[in-house]
Amino acid sequence: MNIQEKFSYMATGKTYNDLDPVLIAARDRATTKTNALNATNDPAERTRLFTALVGSTGADPVVNPNFRCEFGTNIHVGRDFYANYDVVMLDGGRITIGDYVLFGPKVGLYTSNHLFDPTERQLGGCIAKPITIGNHCWLAANVSVMPGVTIGENTIVGANSVVTHDIPANVIAAGNPCRVLRPITAADKTGFVGQDFV
Amino acid sequence: MNIQEKFSYMATGKTYNDLDPVLIAARDRATTKTNALNATNDPAERTRLFTALVGSTGADPVVNPNFRCEFGTNIHVGRDFYANYDVVMLDGGRITIGDYVLFGPKVGLYTSNHLFDPTERQLGGCIAKPITIGNHCWLAANVSVMPGVTIGENTIVGANSVVTHDIPANVIAAGNPCRVLRPITAADKTGFVGQDFV
Amino acid sequence: MNIQEKFSYMATGKTYNDLDPVLIAARDRATTKTNALNATNDPAERTRLFTALVGSTGADPVVNPNFRCEFGTNIHVGRDFYANYDVVMLDGGRITIGDYVLFGPKVGLYTSNHLFDPTERQLGGCIAKPITIGNHCWLAANVSVMPGVTIGENTIVGANSVVTHDIPANVIAAGNPCRVLRPITAADKTGFVGQDFV
Repeated sequence: MNIQEKFSYMATGKTYNDLDPVLIAARDRATTKTNALNATNDPAERTRLFTALVGSTGADPVVNPNFRCEFGTNIHVGRDFYANYDVVMLDGGRITIGDYVLFGPKVGLYTSNHLFDPTERQLGGCIAKPITIGNHCWLAANVSVMPGVTIGENTIVGANSVVTHDIPANVIAAGNPCRVLRPITAADKTGFVGQDFV
Repeated sequence: MNIQEKFSYMATGKTYNDLDPVLIAARDRATTKTNALNATNDPAERTRLFTALVGSTGADPVVNPNFRCEFGTNIHVGRDFYANYDVVMLDGGRITIGDYVLFGPKVGLYTSNHLFDPTERQLGGCIAKPITIGNHCWLAANVSVMPGVTIGENTIVGANSVVTHDIPANVIAAGNPCRVLRPITAADKTGFVGQDFV
Repeated sequence: MNIQEKFSYMATGKTYNDLDPVLIAARDRATTKTNALNATNDPAERTRLFTALVGSTGADPVVNPNFRCEFGTNIHVGRDFYANYDVVMLDGGRITIGDYVLFGPKVGLYTSNHLFDPTERQLGGCIAKPITIGNHCWLAANVSVMPGVTIGENTIVGANSVVTHDIPANVIAAGNPCRVLRPITAADKTGFVGQDFV
């Protein structure tokens, strides 16, 4: 199998071998690429290097250092993505992020679990499940998203939450494990229409 | 408005436009400056670069890499500040830190919230609220402090806490959301008087 | 006292002075060494620099950037250790990690506490307690382990947990504070025997 065939295999949800030399080499290439992204002082260069790193991205991603990922190629991002400092995405499984999504500092998306049996884990056994983040979501600082989770559009996840199960659209959710706190409603409108300090 | 006028406007608690080009340029300058601070091997140079980066600081700040901030100029720090590894401060609102304050690794101070309405958020709408940390506070590893919070002097905040409301002086507090566990009393004294390994 | 004698003193659990110039210089050397480890693109060089940094390590440690530690010399690691991105170990106290241990991104091991009395804390007062992680443990992303904790072999600690007390062997544990959720049993076996994508 080439690496794309391996990713397709991992996407079936079957156990795979994390210690596969092709995967290890791909991880090391991603680390090298994020080292470059994180070292530059030029924001346009960060955008270019992120675009070259991930599977696909819409227009105008802004990605602050230190961004880290496992492979990069399994990350698919919509337009106007914003990642604050120190975001990590482990993309053994597919990561799909909608348009106008905002990530606070230290947000982590984790698509893979090691196997629970210690002998199987030592042998490199892993299972990956996809993560999907809807349009207009905002994940606040330190949010961790677990394998297989989908978060619906417009939803806000509070700081330091651990998202272990799907969260619907149009809500504010928080906690460990993350639970829905309340819907977002018209009462949340402030009247802001994009004015700039007037 | 020049940038100082914009910061004054943001300090009123009114909505402001996070996508303002002056703010974006200021953020990118802060990232460049923290890249330099984080790259040097010279602790005295880290202290010099931190002093040049923030709005004001007392004597002898020690700031370990990777330190990150949004602007830097809205951060005001007392004497003998210690920031362990990977501290993040988003200072759209004013951050005021007293004397002899200790931050563990990965502490985050977050003064700004995006607006909750998704359309308003897409347009760049934000609100900032100040954060104040009293003299002699110790925030342990991974503590996140939310917009508008004041923590009273001498208080200790336990690891991984999320501080969503004010915490009084002279207590130990922890949790998500952070709650007071108990007061600090004379019974907490160990007899340590600064002796060095004797 | 030379630095090894100071570490031996700290290992007795007595209060010690964190502001000791010998300790400060040792911390700065550790930061310089981890800066080098984190800057290289060569995974074999990361392994060499980690091996040179820590007190002892078994074969084939894999340590991703940015790895951080307080001293390095008090860290003792078994074979086939894997540290994902942004792991931090504060090793004022001894850190002992078994064989085949896996750390997710942003795991933190913290062996030292500042003293609780603010005057004693200002004078540099600290106490260190050892941390021990058994063979085949897996600590998921963002887990923080507090001073004095032992985690038994094969145990899995869930994302964002704060481990404040000992956790036995052969369990899954999670939460803040971390609690045992269930034992790991034969039902957790998947049949994975190390096969590579077949």
